[in-house]
This record gives sequence, structure tokens and C-alpha cells, in this order.
Amino acid sequence: MTTADARTPASGRNERNARNAPDASDREAGKSIGWHKGYVRGSRPDILVPVRQVHLTTGRDVALYDTSGPYTDPSVETDVRRGLAPLRENWITARGDTEEYPGRPGRPEDDGLKHTAPRGGLRNLDAVFPGRPRQPRRSRDGRPVTQLAYARRGEITPEMEYVAIRENVLPEVVREEIAAGRAVLPANVNHPETEPMIIGKRFLVKVNANIGNSAVTSSIEEEVDKMTWATRWGADTVMDLSTGRNIHTTREWVLRNSPVPIGTVPLYQALEKVDGRAEELTWEIYKDTVIEQAEQGVDYMTVHAGVRLPYVPLTARRKTGIVSRGGSIMAAWCLAHHKESFLYEHFEELCEILAAYDVTYSLGDGLRPGSIADANDEAQFAELRTLGELNSVAKGFGVQTMIEGPGHVPMHKIKENIDLQQEICEEAPFYTLGPLTTDVAPGYDHITSGIGAAMIAWWGTAMLCYVTPKEHLGLPNRDDVKTGVITYRIAAHAADLAKGHPGAQEWDDALSDARFEFRWEDQFNLALDPDTAREFHDETLPAEPAKTAHFCSMCGPKFCSMKISRSINEKYGDGAAPPEYDEVAVAGMKAKSEEFAVRGNRVYLPLAD
Amino acid sequence: MTTADARTPASGRNERNARNAPDASDREAGKSIGWHKGYVRGSRPDILVPVRQVHLTTGRDVALYDTSGPYTDPSVETDVRRGLAPLRENWITARGDTEEYPGRPGRPEDDGLKHTAPRGGLRNLDAVFPGRPRQPRRSRDGRPVTQLAYARRGEITPEMEYVAIRENVLPEVVREEIAAGRAVLPANVNHPETEPMIIGKRFLVKVNANIGNSAVTSSIEEEVDKMTWATRWGADTVMDLSTGRNIHTTREWVLRNSPVPIGTVPLYQALEKVDGRAEELTWEIYKDTVIEQAEQGVDYMTVHAGVRLPYVPLTARRKTGIVSRGGSIMAAWCLAHHKESFLYEHFEELCEILAAYDVTYSLGDGLRPGSIADANDEAQFAELRTLGELNSVAKGFGVQTMIEGPGHVPMHKIKENIDLQQEICEEAPFYTLGPLTTDVAPGYDHITSGIGAAMIAWWGTAMLCYVTPKEHLGLPNRDDVKTGVITYRIAAHAADLAKGHPGAQEWDDALSDARFEFRWEDQFNLALDPDTAREFHDETLPAEPAKTAHFCSMCGPKFCSMKISRSINEKYGDGAAPPEYDEVAVAGMKAKSEEFAVRGNRVYLPLAD
Repeated sequence: MTTADARTPASGRNERNARNAPDASDREAGKSIGWHKGYVRGSRPDILVPVRQVHLTTGRDVALYDTSGPYTDPSVETDVRRGLAPLRENWITARGDTEEYPGRPGRPEDDGLKHTAPRGGLRNLDAVFPGRPRQPRRSRDGRPVTQLAYARRGEITPEMEYVAIRENVLPEVVREEIAAGRAVLPANVNHPETEPMIIGKRFLVKVNANIGNSAVTSSIEEEVDKMTWATRWGADTVMDLSTGRNIHTTREWVLRNSPVPIGTVPLYQALEKVDGRAEELTWEIYKDTVIEQAEQGVDYMTVHAGVRLPYVPLTARRKTGIVSRGGSIMAAWCLAHHKESFLYEHFEELCEILAAYDVTYSLGDGLRPGSIADANDEAQFAELRTLGELNSVAKGFGVQTMIEGPGHVPMHKIKENIDLQQEICEEAPFYTLGPLTTDVAPGYDHITSGIGAAMIAWWGTAMLCYVTPKEHLGLPNRDDVKTGVITYRIAAHAADLAKGHPGAQEWDDALSDARFEFRWEDQFNLALDPDTAREFHDETLPAEPAKTAHFCSMCGPKFCSMKISRSINEKYGDGAAPPEYDEVAVAGMKAKSEEFAVRGNRVYLPLAD
Repeated sequence: MTTADARTPASGRNERNARNAPDASDREAGKSIGWHKGYVRGSRPDILVPVRQVHLTTGRDVALYDTSGPYTDPSVETDVRRGLAPLRENWITARGDTEEYPGRPGRPEDDGLKHTAPRGGLRNLDAVFPGRPRQPRRSRDGRPVTQLAYARRGEITPEMEYVAIRENVLPEVVREEIAAGRAVLPANVNHPETEPMIIGKRFLVKVNANIGNSAVTSSIEEEVDKMTWATRWGADTVMDLSTGRNIHTTREWVLRNSPVPIGTVPLYQALEKVDGRAEELTWEIYKDTVIEQAEQGVDYMTVHAGVRLPYVPLTARRKTGIVSRGGSIMAAWCLAHHKESFLYEHFEELCEILAAYDVTYSLGDGLRPGSIADANDEAQFAELRTLGELNSVAKGFGVQTMIEGPGHVPMHKIKENIDLQQEICEEAPFYTLGPLTTDVAPGYDHITSGIGAAMIAWWGTAMLCYVTPKEHLGLPNRDDVKTGVITYRIAAHAADLAKGHPGAQEWDDALSDARFEFRWEDQFNLALDPDTAREFHDETLPAEPAKTAHFCSMCGPKFCSMKISRSINEKYGDGAAPPEYDEVAVAGMKAKSEEFAVRGNRVYLPLAD
């Protein structure tokens, strides 16, 4: 079988059974429809790459990329209180370059100074994750235990083979891209539950979904649910941007239950530890927080080390100043102490820590534009040049690195962003937020940004950070998370098509064939969101037979353009190459026309057939 | 005052009053908030161009483009049974080149052979439009009475001045673009109710919304409501694609109540007259239908005259054949008779008819691709070359003309479409359907196509035909229409920004300023969809004071990046140019830092302030 280049949400058990119930087309085709969770086996029995295996009524199968984890495998019992099985544990221990250790002792402030306050939401879940006891793991001798280090040594790890199968490329291609710093494989040794995935312009465009509670709203349980919900619809990674209370505990629940890499912004938690007073932050508090999170298993961390003291004044005349939370925290610190950023000053030391756990850098763009007016300005590009320096330093320490990008950028200024980033950062993976192509549509910024995201991904961005309809207005709920993920999966796949990614078009072709042949069930099962496609169709034509009827609600039963096309196809598509537009062809059609007259000039047949 | 380059829905009377109710920011600013329907007066008292006048709490006003018609003017009494006032009547009669005449007698088949059948929906409305009696009007002597003819004669009509004010350009620019065939001003002499608007690449990108009942579903009343609803949210034109019964009557209701140009596909009604049997269509039936619709006031008509007999075989090997309904009807006719298309054969005669009413051509792309696989193929471009010929012929007869475009096109193949069309069709306005950039997301095709629409509009497309979430699945309901229009307004404005349209960014800047200064009410009133923006914000922070509170739900009350930016702005944004990144600047910041320390190292102030 081939793993088609494609995405689709895996459905829960109930939907799956519902979808497998025989219906009209089922009886016609005489085979089962719907889909099941399949696995592609690698060179060893413990490399099993999940796919969504869609069964078409034609008897053909289409395998789609699957980010949903064990939750969509009926044969796996999952329990949010136990967490997922440590898929990668044996691979990690077998390398023999890491060791368990007692780890950093927990502190009250880890959950925020006011962690005991009633609000912040512990409802229905105990605060402390009850799962199996575990000790953190780190490099045995301080040398990097990163996929980058292994790739440079010429090793193809099980993680690399796993993503090679997922991406339908040779493992050596994966190793080369990682070794060159053109791709990252985020895989903290303390997050063995993660299913390996890769981020790089040679591979499928990836999508990140942000979750996270704030002091104002949301609970631990909601965040865990948002994470599984986001991955079900196609999120490749999830960032926990919690800023409120229970920040450590929330992250523990999310990590132990996440099949995808988890990213964070350690600065947010560090700020909680000093009760929100940016100027009271210190390198020691920040470093301690990074270690705390690395031990938990955070796979990549956004570090705003590019926000340097001298750049802060460059934002003074902006329309919207500094909109990055991390960026403004560091700017506040720099101003308060009139010192260079402690993140910039201690960057090498930070590299050593990340290398010991294989935490990937996501170098944050703290000075990204927050409005169309501020796009591509001096502050933004000054920071980008610094991120280029830091990227080289990080790679020197064997730390995998990607670079974050904007933000708010009008269409005609988007390409300059990716071109400059690729040049300055030696083709390190670009990870952009949108960009939003206009500021005037609050409530629809998944769309204003989905436009920019598709374009910048076509031009080389490796991962897109989703934007939900609630951007600028509030925290996303479950529906917003789904809408954001689906919108960004569309942008990512449109880019895969435009990049001519091998096999990217197979998915579109399979769905278009089903559409042309009125195989409604196949259309639904192949759709990015089968539930919504089916629901919309049934609104207009609820009757079950309509799903196989040879017409649809747009044209009605009397006339159908698809039917006419099919008759043309029957007449001219018979194996021979289509006639060119020339007199011979025109002459040749005379005969066809007579055949046609014999059939009573009917280009479509009555519905009865 | 200036008419800002911008769009926003005008709100109904109730919302308006609700929005004008004083609230916290109102009391603070001591002025009225919200907006009102304003008019910009031209060189004569009867040229009054509507704008949505938004009152900011700063005291400043922003005027936004307004497509909503008299329905949003509290001082105008509208009655769907009487229709709108004939705004352009005096301008048309004053030209003295048209005359009233008895017109074509109505026939039973005008509403479809089964027009008396109970289904097809007449509920709550009488079938026949009860409005004022009117006789149709046409050219007095057969010479063209088109805006194109006037423009070529050097005349600046009231319609041209009206759109010049709307677009904030000189009337002469409007005349030149129309005279050159680079823009059209659809304005049938029998649709005096329409508020003039222009379609051309030098002007704001326009959006069309499709409505129309089918034999399967929907009613007259629903269609009239969809039309006013679509224009309220920003539709510049509306196409009535009805295919079921009561087709003539539905159109009459829509036209008499529409403040925007109405487009149709006459072939659909002609097909109803022969009970759906394509091969029974004749030039006479089609011609009679075009006259019937021209007398009613249809402003532009899609004519699939480019679907020529020799091109039909070129579609045989396609993945999705012919997906255009009009295209497949003509293909069926050509095959049935083995004759060249009667639309192509009689094109000159058709031009004479359209010129006598100033009906604008929308030359249909009957062979547009219906899937990613079929994009930019021989069949599509063969037809485009023919549309180029026909465009020249039409202009020779003084008929305004635009060209329709695809469809389904991956991002990397979009630019070729607009570049080729502009070259082949002498820069005639391009009017595209999307294009959809992937086939895999039924239920979300407003987004798959919004991406392509923004890009092709940036590159020169003049008008975008919206796609709703129901595309490929069913007929759009009220919510789908709104979602489609808003999505396409986003695409159109993103393109206006990328094209550097004069003043396009004013709207974004006004909203970004409001965002940066926490003027929530101003953000809502400036938003493309104020209702949704307000509702989303209130979901998380429902309390009225929150609308003026100096924080938002994303960061919570303790920490706010905007506040920090503002403090930086206060420190460095003081009239002087922002310091460059150099040692001088760094040194200069020492003093600033001390001031800062004096303020207790607070970069944000307690909420109390």
C-alpha cells in the first residue's frame, strides 16, 4: 500500500461504526465502506505508522496521513488519567546516551503563586496527574542527544524511519534534511508518547494548534480535550500557552496524553513565578523553568532571544507596537534594567540545556508586526537578523532549531518574509503565524490569515501556526479550535499541491473522481471534514437514496451537467487520445452525432436507471 | 469628507439604535458612538452616494463603502411589495435616446411549463409582483444606449460621476476605463432602482453573490430576502440563478427590490421553456428569453457563446468533464445537432439586443475546470481564445463586456489564468469563481476558494463570484450567504491592499489604532462584521466595562503586551524620529531607563487607572 500525501481527521469509535453501517451504495458495490485506522509497518515490528485507511465503494483504498493518535484505534484502550503508552521509550533507552535522575523538586510557584486559589478550574480532574510514576531523563554525559546530532553522525533513528514512512520518502532524505538544519524532528526524550513527525520545506506542510488557559478563563480538563480534539482534525503539533494558574499541572496532563509534539513559551510560566512583574525576571528563574519543562517532556520551546535592547526603540513609532506577549515581556525587562536581554546573553548556556533533552528551539519573533501598517519594518527585520545568528549558534550545540515568523502582512509583502528568513537562517524551517492579510475582519481572522498562510507555505514555510475565529477577541472554544485546524489544513494542503509535493494531488483526484461519479459516500469519507460534508448534503437532500442518486440539489433531477459530461466521456473518452481541435475532428463528430440521434438525442438517462 | 476605500455591512434600524445606546466609552468620550447612513452629494442634488459613516469615540469619522441600499436608511420607508424608488429614472429619460413600448407579452412558460404546480414556493407572497405598473424601455433608434457608447462619445453620465465618488477617483478616470473596455458599469435602462457601481481592475475589487431557487428547494420570498441580506453584508452584484418554477416572477421581485445590478444566465430559463430538453433549444426561444429578461431590467447576462462544437471533445478525457451548467447545456445541444453553437452563430444579433437596453455581457467560461486535475487545460484555454474574439465583437457593437474565469485551480497555476485573460481579452474585466485551490474540503469551499480569490484579485481580477460553504453539497441558506459574502469581502479587501489601491489601508489603520488603544466599541463598529466581533468578544468578557478595560482575555488583567508597547511608545514615540539601532541610541536609553525606575519599574498601570 502507499501512504497517500493527505490529511483527514480520524473519527471516533461511534462515528466509525455509524459510518460503517451498510447503506444504498454499500449494497450496490457489495463491499464495506467507510474507513479504519491502519498501520504501516517499518523495518522493525515496533515501527507502526498510523494511517486513515479510506475504503472507496469502487473497492480501492486511499491511505491518508493521520495525526489523531491511539484515540481513533478501537483496539486501543485509552485513559486520560493513565496517559498514552510510551511508544518511543525503547528507542530512547536503546541509544544508551541518556539516564534517569531524580529531577528538579516541584515548587509551589510551579503552578503560579496563587495556585491554591479556587478559580483556575480543577473541576472533574485532580490537580496532580495520577499516571504512572516516572523519573526524568537527560543526556548521560552532557553531549547532545538530539536527532540533529544523530543525523550528523549518519544515524537513521527509528524516529527518522517513522517519519520517512509517514512522508512517503526515503529515510536517508529525512536524515539529510535534519543534518543540514533544513528540518526538525521535535522529540524530547521525556515525551516518549509522541508519534514522530517532521517539519521542513521538503516535507508536507504542518499545522500547529495553540491551546492554553488564562487567568481569565478555561480549565485543565478543557485544555486536554482541546488537544485531543485538535489532533483529531489534523493538528501536527500543539502549543500549550497557558498563562493562568495550574500551569505546571495542566502541562503534565497535556503531555502525558498527547500523540503530537508539545510546544510552550517558558517565559509565560516564568512570569507567573514572579507574579507578572516582568522586571523581576532573572536568568535563574527562567533557566529553572526551562529545566522544569524539559523534564516534563516539552518538545519545542519558543525563546524570544532576538528581542535585543537596541531594537526596542525601533517599535516606538509603530501603529501597534509590540504585540508578541513574549516580546513585550522581554522588552519590559530590557527597559527596566537597561540591560541586554538575559536570553540573548545566556543563549549558549540555554543551548546546552536543550541539547541534553532534545528540546527543539522555536526562535520567537517577539517584534513581529501586529498590523498591516507595521509589516516588514526595521524592528521586525533587525530581530530576524539576530535570529539568524542564534540559529547558527544553536546548530553548533547540536540543538534542532526553527524560526518563527509573522503575523500581519499584506499579500504583496509576504514573499519577502520567507525569502529573507531562508537566506538569513540557512534554510532553517520557518514557522509562521498566518500571516493575516488584512486587519478589518475580527471574528474571521482564521480566513484573513488562512489566505496568507497558504501563500507563505507555497513559498517555503514548513509549519503554520493556526489562527482561530476568536483571534483578537477571546479564547477559542472547541468549535473555534476545529475551525482553525480545518482552515489551516486547507492552507497546508493547497500549498502541498502548489509545491508539487509527490502524491499531493492523489487525494484531490480521488475526491474529484468520486464527485464526478456521484459516489457521495466516498466524497464524505475522503473529505477533510466528513461530518460537515455529510451534514450539509443531508440538509438539502436528506433521503438516503439521494446519496446515490445521479443528480444533486444544485441542478435538480431534471438536468445535470455531470451527466452530460459523462455521456461526452462515453462518446470520446474511449482510450483514444482526445481529438485535437481541427477539421478532421469536426468531421469525425458527424458519425458520433448520428449514433447520438439513434439514442433519441438523450444525453442523460431518466433517473430510473 | 473622504469616502474611505472600505466595506462594511450597514446594520438594520434595530441594531443601529441598540448600537447607539450610550455605554461606558460613550460616557467617557462624551460623544455618540456607532454609525449612521450618510450620503455624499455630487455635482447635482440627485447624485447622493451612500456611505456607512462610522463615528469613532475619538471624535473622528470614517466613511465606508456601502452596498446595502435604502434598507439601512431609517428615513426611507421600504416595502418589498412596492419595490425601491427608481433612482436613475430621470437620468435615463433625460438622455432622450430611449422610449417606452408595450413590451413582449407574458407567456405561461415564462415561469416554467409546470409553473402552476403547488411546489416551487409562493408562500406569503402573491406570485405576480404587485408594484407600480411599468412599461419596458429600449433604444429609440436601435443605436446603443450603453455607458460604453456614452464614454466613447466623451460623455460623463450621472452614473459615472456616482461611481467616481464611490471609488474616490476623478469622473474622467471612470469614463476612460469604461471607454477602453477595461471596466463596465452594469446599468440596464429597465433597472432604474440600481445604485451605480463599476467593475474594473483600476477600481475596488467587487464581489458577486449568487441566489436562486431550484426545482428541488427554496421560494420566491427566500430569494428576495437572500438578495437584500447579501447586499447588506457587502455584495456588489447579485446573480439570480433560479432554475425551477416561477423563474420570471422570482426575478421580477428581486429586480424591483435590488439596489445592486442583477445578473442572470438566460439559458437556464430557456431550458425550462423546453422542459429541460437541451436539444430542443432554439435561437428563437433563447432570443425571446433574453428580450424578456432585458425588459425586466437584468443588468448583465452570462452567455456561454465560447462553448464551440469543436471544443466539446477536448473535455472527454477530463477528470470532471464539463461542470458549468450552461456549458454542458450548450455542449449537449451541439452534440445533438452536430452544429456550431447557436449562441456563437447569432452572437452579432445578440449584441444588437443587449446594446438596446445596456445589458452587459458576462461571457461565460462553460469549459472551466471542475477539479485541480483539469486546471489550465486545452479545453479551457481554447474557449478563452474564443471569448477574446467575442469580446472584440461585443465592443464593436457598443456592448459592455466582462469575461468569466475559473473554477478549480491550484495556487501555482492561478497567475497564468489572469495574465492570459488580460492579454487575450484586451484587459476586459475578469470575473472569476474562486478559484478553489484544492478539491478535498467540501463544506469549506468558501475558504478553499477565498484563498485563490484573494490571489487572482491581487493580480488583476475585477470581480469575484462568491462561493459558499454549501458549494458541491446543496443550496446556500441565509447563513451560508452571509459567510460567503464576508469571506469574499475579505479576499477583495486583501487584494485592494496588495494592489496599493489609494486609501485601501485607511480602514485597516483605523481598526488597528482602535485595537492598540483598547477602543473596543470602535473595533466593533469598524469591523467587516460588527455583530460577530462583538458577540465573540462578549462570550469571554461579557461585562460592559470590559469593553473599555485595558486588557483583553488573551493575556488577562495581570499582564498585557499592548500596555507595554504603549509605555514604550510614550517613552520613545515623542514626535522625534525613532532612534536608529546604534550605540548612540543604546547610550541614550540609559536616561530613559532611570526615568522608568522612578516610576517604580511599572510598564503597565494597575487596572484602577
